[in-house]
Amino acid sequence: MHDGCTLFDDLPDDSVPRAAADQVVDPGLHRVATWFRRQQRLEQRFSAVLRQSIDEVLDGQRTGRFDIAEAEKTEKTYLGTKVEIVCRSEFDLFRGVSGMDYRIADEDVDAKFSLYGKWMIPREAMGHVCLLMQVNDAKATFDIGLVRIREEILSSGLNRDKKRQLSSSGRGGIEWLVQDGALIENTLLRMSQSMRALIFAESSGQQRVNALFRNVRGSLIDRNSVVTAARQIDSAKRVRDAREALAAQGIVILGHQKDCPRVASELGITVPPKGCWISVRLVATPNPDGRNRVFLEGRHYAVAEYWEPEEPAPKISC
Amino acid sequence: MHDGCTLFDDLPDDSVPRAAADQVVDPGLHRVATWFRRQQRLEQRFSAVLRQSIDEVLDGQRTGRFDIAEAEKTEKTYLGTKVEIVCRSEFDLFRGVSGMDYRIADEDVDAKFSLYGKWMIPREAMGHVCLLMQVNDAKATFDIGLVRIREEILSSGLNRDKKRQLSSSGRGGIEWLVQDGALIENTLLRMSQSMRALIFAESSGQQRVNALFRNVRGSLIDRNSVVTAARQIDSAKRVRDAREALAAQGIVILGHQKDCPRVASELGITVPPKGCWISVRLVATPNPDGRNRVFLEGRHYAVAEYWEPEEPAPKISC
Repeated sequence: MHDGCTLFDDLPDDSVPRAAADQVVDPGLHRVATWFRRQQRLEQRFSAVLRQSIDEVLDGQRTGRFDIAEAEKTEKTYLGTKVEIVCRSEFDLFRGVSGMDYRIADEDVDAKFSLYGKWMIPREAMGHVCLLMQVNDAKATFDIGLVRIREEILSSGLNRDKKRQLSSSGRGGIEWLVQDGALIENTLLRMSQSMRALIFAESSGQQRVNALFRNVRGSLIDRNSVVTAARQIDSAKRVRDAREALAAQGIVILGHQKDCPRVASELGITVPPKGCWISVRLVATPNPDGRNRVFLEGRHYAVAEYWEPEEPAPKISC
Repeated sequence: MHDGCTLFDDLPDDSVPRAAADQVVDPGLHRVATWFRRQQRLEQRFSAVLRQSIDEVLDGQRTGRFDIAEAEKTEKTYLGTKVEIVCRSEFDLFRGVSGMDYRIADEDVDAKFSLYGKWMIPREAMGHVCLLMQVNDAKATFDIGLVRIREEILSSGLNRDKKRQLSSSGRGGIEWLVQDGALIENTLLRMSQSMRALIFAESSGQQRVNALFRNVRGSLIDRNSVVTAARQIDSAKRVRDAREALAAQGIVILGHQKDCPRVASELGITVPPKGCWISVRLVATPNPDGRNRVFLEGRHYAVAEYWEPEEPAPKISC
């Protein structure tokens, strides 16, 4: 049996290779794909690039927005430029030599971002490799692929800027680097509408942050969600004040410092990385009952079940 | 004699008031102008809004760019949106009721920013007050004005988006809130080309930061200039390392903390606000010679003249 890499090696030059074969008959694209696949933590880094770009354009701290679908057209257009910049910075890429965005593995590569996978390809990209990026913030997924732009993979229609989309066979020929990747979650967008309503019914920034940590338990809440709820810059101060406000209900907010990682780890919940917090409600559990327990202020505590009565939270050094 | 406010009060309704009189026959625009003029530190706050917006779009930390004129078209378009957002946040403005950007003093007001004062007015703005903003980063100046959009103040030509510019008589009718305002300086853009060449000839971020503080003496250098030169986020660390690197040449870098404000003040130089630094070269001056002197490590120091030999800098708690 032939393997995929040699199957089409003997095609005559003028043949039109089938989409599935593009990757093997295009050594340039193959080199770019290999370069990316050799990067450490490729999926996580693209996830961070896309999350950071979307969050910067949403500018939640100033606007209170968390849904990029509701941004203005100029902002969505600019998001593509922001992604291009953040991606160049994350992977330390140089600019291409023929006006393309990047130079990777001796190939010019153009960055093409689209929120909805409808990449608009300009004439100048003809013959070049495109790094295709798309994201679905509501589903917390993203895709990264490579394709070389050729006449036969483009649709016939032009938009006002004389750009064209990939045809469906063109889409079939994309060499995927990440498919259905895990995007860092947008807490405020991903929560249920009723929970969001509870949070945004509060009139002050601090009260919205309190409601965020009161309602979203046991999963990571990042700095951007806090400043978006607060519409203020100082997330650390808002979290400290939320900690005090929620202590009477037994809710603790764990961060990445001091005693917090140990407490999270012994409770069996996610240990927050820098820039994230996690809130849980605790109850004292004098006797072992199968739950993970942590020893605090002379007593054992476990994560409360919803039916257990509220009691004041122990103090944790954070 | 009539004063300006009553001169045109008895004009018949169908007369076309002269541009200079618009402000007095337009009570709505007058209210908006009064609202802005009652804001504290109006010029400084608009200066900060514009500086912050330009710096965010330049994204110097990731791109190394400091000249907005060289940004891409999508970025320049987006800059208008960023200015609108930062301005809304700075002055705590609500959105307008008829799709305009702001509601100020019972008037709908649309924000219109232009780098070059060629504001593009959309059809929807007809009849509404526009907050006109323009900036010249190279000259470190900006202007803020108000105008009510009427058919007769617009030029006849439409651009591709069906927007029109102000005619020259329309420009003459602008009610200025700030004219030739002092924009917070863009250090890297405003320095001489030869000095910039010295800085950007260095190959590492730290070396560029060292060169920045070695060459730009006695004037404020802000955090954004440091991260742009460094192309790294941690400006505080870069400044600390620059301090060590330049101490042998007698150069000290003063910030806003600990002993720095006193030292700057006694030397008679600008005391840096938070987020800014100032570098000076010091020499020991055993005898009073008319210069401002500061007492450090048992000796008196003054800002060095260029002809005075270099000597190691005293240690300052920063």
